[in-house]
Amino acid sequence: MTKPRHTDIDSTATSRRRFLREGGALLGGTIIAGGLAGSKALAASEGSGNLPPSVPEWMKTPGDPMGSQPYGMPSRFEKDVIKNIPKNLPQYLSASGRTPLQDLDGIITPNGLFYERHHGGVPTIDPAQHRLMLHGLVDKPLILTMDDIRRFPSQSHIYFLECSANPGYDKPYGKTASDLVGLLSCAEWTGVSLKLVLQEAGLQTGAKWVVAEGADAAAMTRSVPIEKCLDDAMLVYSQNGERLRPQQGYPLRLLLPGFEGNMSVKWLRRLHVVAEPVYSREETSKYSDLMPDGSAREFTFDMEAKSIITRPSGGQRLTTPGFQEIGGIAWSGRGKIKRVDVSVDDGKSWQAAELQEPVLTRALTRFRFPWRWDGQPAVIQSRAIDETGYVQPTLGELLAVRGENYYYHNNAIWPWRIATDGEVTNAHA
Amino acid sequence: MTKPRHTDIDSTATSRRRFLREGGALLGGTIIAGGLAGSKALAASEGSGNLPPSVPEWMKTPGDPMGSQPYGMPSRFEKDVIKNIPKNLPQYLSASGRTPLQDLDGIITPNGLFYERHHGGVPTIDPAQHRLMLHGLVDKPLILTMDDIRRFPSQSHIYFLECSANPGYDKPYGKTASDLVGLLSCAEWTGVSLKLVLQEAGLQTGAKWVVAEGADAAAMTRSVPIEKCLDDAMLVYSQNGERLRPQQGYPLRLLLPGFEGNMSVKWLRRLHVVAEPVYSREETSKYSDLMPDGSAREFTFDMEAKSIITRPSGGQRLTTPGFQEIGGIAWSGRGKIKRVDVSVDDGKSWQAAELQEPVLTRALTRFRFPWRWDGQPAVIQSRAIDETGYVQPTLGELLAVRGENYYYHNNAIWPWRIATDGEVTNAHA
Repeated sequence: MTKPRHTDIDSTATSRRRFLREGGALLGGTIIAGGLAGSKALAASEGSGNLPPSVPEWMKTPGDPMGSQPYGMPSRFEKDVIKNIPKNLPQYLSASGRTPLQDLDGIITPNGLFYERHHGGVPTIDPAQHRLMLHGLVDKPLILTMDDIRRFPSQSHIYFLECSANPGYDKPYGKTASDLVGLLSCAEWTGVSLKLVLQEAGLQTGAKWVVAEGADAAAMTRSVPIEKCLDDAMLVYSQNGERLRPQQGYPLRLLLPGFEGNMSVKWLRRLHVVAEPVYSREETSKYSDLMPDGSAREFTFDMEAKSIITRPSGGQRLTTPGFQEIGGIAWSGRGKIKRVDVSVDDGKSWQAAELQEPVLTRALTRFRFPWRWDGQPAVIQSRAIDETGYVQPTLGELLAVRGENYYYHNNAIWPWRIATDGEVTNAHA
Repeated sequence: MTKPRHTDIDSTATSRRRFLREGGALLGGTIIAGGLAGSKALAASEGSGNLPPSVPEWMKTPGDPMGSQPYGMPSRFEKDVIKNIPKNLPQYLSASGRTPLQDLDGIITPNGLFYERHHGGVPTIDPAQHRLMLHGLVDKPLILTMDDIRRFPSQSHIYFLECSANPGYDKPYGKTASDLVGLLSCAEWTGVSLKLVLQEAGLQTGAKWVVAEGADAAAMTRSVPIEKCLDDAMLVYSQNGERLRPQQGYPLRLLLPGFEGNMSVKWLRRLHVVAEPVYSREETSKYSDLMPDGSAREFTFDMEAKSIITRPSGGQRLTTPGFQEIGGIAWSGRGKIKRVDVSVDDGKSWQAAELQEPVLTRALTRFRFPWRWDGQPAVIQSRAIDETGYVQPTLGELLAVRGENYYYHNNAIWPWRIATDGEVTNAHA
């Protein structure tokens, strides 16, 4: 086995150049051939059983017919890739289900695995009966049907959505990437610019906030600053091509790109244009941050830059030393991800990862870093830097500023510990 | 009601500028207020029944609990948005199911609605038992497990996939956008560069084609030119974040961006590196094009530039004159879409549509065009222009060159006829 190649590489080199250089080494077979222990040169012994060139059982008879699944589902061999729903919590009213991030690739979260967070259960809403009321400080109050909303000019964007308690400062922290930051997903959303609808109604002088209300049993209510409503806020009816799922607000939700997920009010029924925020439960008792001096930070909307390694991550196991691609996701509520650094030596040194193009604003960005595990204990972690220059902090740095009563907006770097047997665990647990 | 605003606009203006100018008109209320007949200013009569400000029934009791759907499904009100599977065709062996394009938004096709085309049914493959054999003109033949393949460096890209008989030249043509071109979908794919795997095996002199074989009962076999294999070809294991669906080749498929879908062999079990194509059934009897002079075009891989208006489209009905956004999708196997033109006067004049950013290579591109229907009969259509300068032809232009025995690679412009009652029908039917 050869030594890892990247330790001698200037950290200012672009990640693509370094990746290609590593790739060149891989292609020579010196690393991958050692690392891919399961890969076997074709030998006589491989010809037995169901392996090629033998014909497997599933080629000997016709497969399942068309039409057994008019709406398709995953393979039964993927039955354990489901939403991560805590078993020990009441799941009827205030409930959450996390995306299994460690099992996913790319940046799109399939709708069946999109994270959920409810405060009054999931209502069943007939879209023909649903209405959106827009009133308050407007020239022309409106009641819109879904057909009305569909007739406005539309737009589509890929944005992440994240709960602001992801995770809360709440020991014991979880074991897997999903336990820690699984209240995070990303989709292509289609709907109407909220600005366009507000302009159709005509904003009056003094219109500074829009109070959004959901049609769930909790009547989820949040105050949104008018600047966001006139920027990239959307009224969304479709997600990844099809109509919103009930769990995501069917038939209509507010979408505030980069803001804490709770504000993107689901099952949207009312927009009240006002001069002052309403100080609802979810912006006072909840979703506010108690500081060490006893004051509370309110209206902390933007989800700051963050990243996590999903592969390898907690609950997984490296089977053998050798080449191992480190991969994960990064995101920022303030815009695009500019860089993701990876450390494989417990934070002593950092090197830039490769970012998957296109890097989109307020969307997940997939990063990858070629690594060769030498079989020794290691701590690996990633940190995101966004286009504002903000750098994702360590947990220690966050706690030093925010104290122990803080709960939301935890965007700390999260390290994974790798043991000599390959087991990956939460290094902060 | 005012006159349509766009007739006096210089067609050389960028679509964004024109859209914004139209938008300005909309915001003034002159067009939308007329067009959005269903939109009502808030009045006392609206306060009755379940409309806001009244509280609908579904807010009065808690909704469904978390966990009833560990893998989520669409709303029951969307039960008719399913794959479009012909009722009158045998669906056991050679079968197809189309994406309901006219019901979808954006560019991502949800996995449950991705189009299907099978030749021996859908095999049920245990990924732990599946193997990919790579042999022939290589230095080091390989048998790879799925774990081996997962350990190669990965990449993710959004690409469309389209059957080359979409539609075939086959009267009567269908009624809806799905009937016509529903053997088309688009997803974010994750997998391994085929080039990397071929280089790991080591290509020998004379390696000009790679024969891909599927592990279905049809042993689907296609010859792929080595140039494509060393370009953007992928071995794909994930689609829209999660593992491939069985209908899309679980656990492994070839993906050849921009090539006819049949070549992106599903359930991939074998790659045979050879000097000449094998002239399999699917590249001789099928998927070849019989020309008027009796010769057959073979190995016509690239899917040429194409587009279709999905809204409004066949089977839909405009409910009232006024503002109507025309929207659709465009794509080209040769790269990025450069422009989409829309005609609302039966092809007499054309204007550039707005393209939704980002425009990605070999992905669907969503286009939109603001229109005001005057209630009179109209024929609307779109034509795509790709970055090579190629312009999507009319059906007449195609038939004049190709004759009546041609079946595949029909990328004709497809017009929709709108009647005075708002009914939308296939203008070529």
